[in-house]
Amino acid sequence: MIYLDHNATTPVDPRVREEMLPYLVEIFGNPSSLHSFGRKAKEAIEEARIRVAHLISANPKEIFFTSGGTEADNLAIRGIASYHKDRGKHIITTAIEHHAVLLCTDALEKEGFKITYIMPKKDGIVSAEDVLKAISKETILITIMTANNETGAFQPIKEIGRRLAEHNKKRTAKDRVYFHTDAVQAVGKTPFDVDKLQVDMVSLSGHKIYGPKGVGAIYIRQGSRISPITYGGQHENGMRPGTENVPGIVGFGRAAEIANSEFYKMKEVKRLRDLLERGILERIPDVQINGSQDMRLPTTTSISFSGVFSESLLAVLDQKGIAVSSGSACNSSSPSSHVLKSMELSKETMLSTLRFSLGTGNTEEEIRFVISATAEAVDKLR
Amino acid sequence: MIYLDHNATTPVDPRVREEMLPYLVEIFGNPSSLHSFGRKAKEAIEEARIRVAHLISANPKEIFFTSGGTEADNLAIRGIASYHKDRGKHIITTAIEHHAVLLCTDALEKEGFKITYIMPKKDGIVSAEDVLKAISKETILITIMTANNETGAFQPIKEIGRRLAEHNKKRTAKDRVYFHTDAVQAVGKTPFDVDKLQVDMVSLSGHKIYGPKGVGAIYIRQGSRISPITYGGQHENGMRPGTENVPGIVGFGRAAEIANSEFYKMKEVKRLRDLLERGILERIPDVQINGSQDMRLPTTTSISFSGVFSESLLAVLDQKGIAVSSGSACNSSSPSSHVLKSMELSKETMLSTLRFSLGTGNTEEEIRFVISATAEAVDKLR
Repeated sequence: MIYLDHNATTPVDPRVREEMLPYLVEIFGNPSSLHSFGRKAKEAIEEARIRVAHLISANPKEIFFTSGGTEADNLAIRGIASYHKDRGKHIITTAIEHHAVLLCTDALEKEGFKITYIMPKKDGIVSAEDVLKAISKETILITIMTANNETGAFQPIKEIGRRLAEHNKKRTAKDRVYFHTDAVQAVGKTPFDVDKLQVDMVSLSGHKIYGPKGVGAIYIRQGSRISPITYGGQHENGMRPGTENVPGIVGFGRAAEIANSEFYKMKEVKRLRDLLERGILERIPDVQINGSQDMRLPTTTSISFSGVFSESLLAVLDQKGIAVSSGSACNSSSPSSHVLKSMELSKETMLSTLRFSLGTGNTEEEIRFVISATAEAVDKLR
Repeated sequence: MIYLDHNATTPVDPRVREEMLPYLVEIFGNPSSLHSFGRKAKEAIEEARIRVAHLISANPKEIFFTSGGTEADNLAIRGIASYHKDRGKHIITTAIEHHAVLLCTDALEKEGFKITYIMPKKDGIVSAEDVLKAISKETILITIMTANNETGAFQPIKEIGRRLAEHNKKRTAKDRVYFHTDAVQAVGKTPFDVDKLQVDMVSLSGHKIYGPKGVGAIYIRQGSRISPITYGGQHENGMRPGTENVPGIVGFGRAAEIANSEFYKMKEVKRLRDLLERGILERIPDVQINGSQDMRLPTTTSISFSGVFSESLLAVLDQKGIAVSSGSACNSSSPSSHVLKSMELSKETMLSTLRFSLGTGNTEEEIRFVISATAEAVDKLR
């Protein structure tokens, strides 16, 4: 079995599992409890908070654990919308965001917000200039992903952050334009520093970086004004109620630490991704790589195989034990991709596209097998 | 170490952990993925859905996994409020709900909803009559917990369900009064059948029944009209977006199955709880049990030790290796309990109250030790 769908989810690193195990049966206390069982659980989540903060060069006080990236996106967008709606109801985003962002903005649109969707260029990257030009007096939030889940294309977060900081210079927490980025796909694969990027909020997910599913986090810059979106106990400093997922948080912390210390592994992943692309381009005619080939994640490639339905190709590869995807897993029921569409790909090209997303466990032998298997499959299907 | 704080959280049953483990490293696929890794994960969550449904005699299609009980409460209350707000803005609840309910209704009150808080009698139980009488033309939802987390007192869910069904007889999904119950503390400890109780929505939690933290579920009766409260992928049939917490859900499923098949163990838990109460009443003067002693969970007792600060007693017991609580863990930062206050306990009595909540792992030897240790501690503190 060869797994090339790491953008959908990653296996839990065995070292992460080891660290989680004691927090199921033995150290099982509720972190809010005042006795020793509770204190040990509390210590564990505070240690994990430090580790996650470290991965993005944040202060641990600025990290709030959630149930995953989707909840983090919802909290950022609806939390800012809810707090600041009286001073403005305009939000800027892009046409290539994950559905966790786009369906939030859809819902807000129905509640009377105005949303500007910036279109990417053909390389799958939006222009910072377009984003900045869209700001009006009503704008309260810009939310743009760090790297796209389908093409891997990096968005110009640093440039937007720098120019937005300029725009916000004389503004306070009450009247600034907040900047959120969904970095679920980017963190752990590319350097990420909240101060260098000048972002106010960042969505993170455990299961995209060899941590467990069911846990994520949101970074919220100190001093930001934002409302919680769910109500209950005073967990996570009042930002996110509900008994903390202690083993999940501990696992996420360990995964963040490993991602941080083994960042060098991304070089090998990139080498294998490039090998895969070259192999496919050499062996299979009428093939194209979608989106920027320079400005993108080291893990990801989006390839269109002219005249082949991606769903058929996916199924044939699945039978050969190779897991790839035809787009975002979260949108697998929909046959076409809003990301590729916004890049002006023809419908035919869209429907013949596969995403290969590599991980630290893949080997050169696997990649060589995938190249052959894909060439055979395309040949047969054509 | 003796753990008597099972209402705050329970250890994961080793059999639950066993079942979860393969879903971390080996069977790690994203249930939305179309390849074999994804299908295996999907099968696992559907199996868990059947098990959880079985515990409350529901149809698996009516079970939607969440990150926990708090999210389930938020989804029930805000989901109904959001869908039905145009026909009515009145919600009936009680003064003794968990904060996950009370802070939701607080937030809705600020948004223009009218909330009726039914007070309990001195035994900690609300009257079904009071609840039914509060219904007006504007009422869209009744939300009342099945058993209270502090006293264990059962609320008259069955009677309310029966009388509400009468009230709703000629109404449709569009104009009925919906009935939600937070059964986080009750399920697994007392028989629970959604049809016999005639409830429309039920909140459930994994970590209260020897399952993992970070996972829960909401039962929603088929045909109900309710909006999701977060936005993203089409997971959980569109009710709850975000990549599913597969190992957590699998663990919750196994815990539900065990709770269902080992329900008989509650008899022994009740025997030990009664032994604990008798021992304390016999050995320690000026002690009172709070709330109904008949209509309550087999696991729970709330005891006031006149003239002793519960926080001091909790700390002394903690030093002796005994974990108890002074109230709800989710509200441990607040010195007094809204539940006991609504039962008209004096402030002094409230502040001298401990909650002992037993579990299936406790032994008679432990209970005898706890009785002696508590008697000694109270003696010293007085």
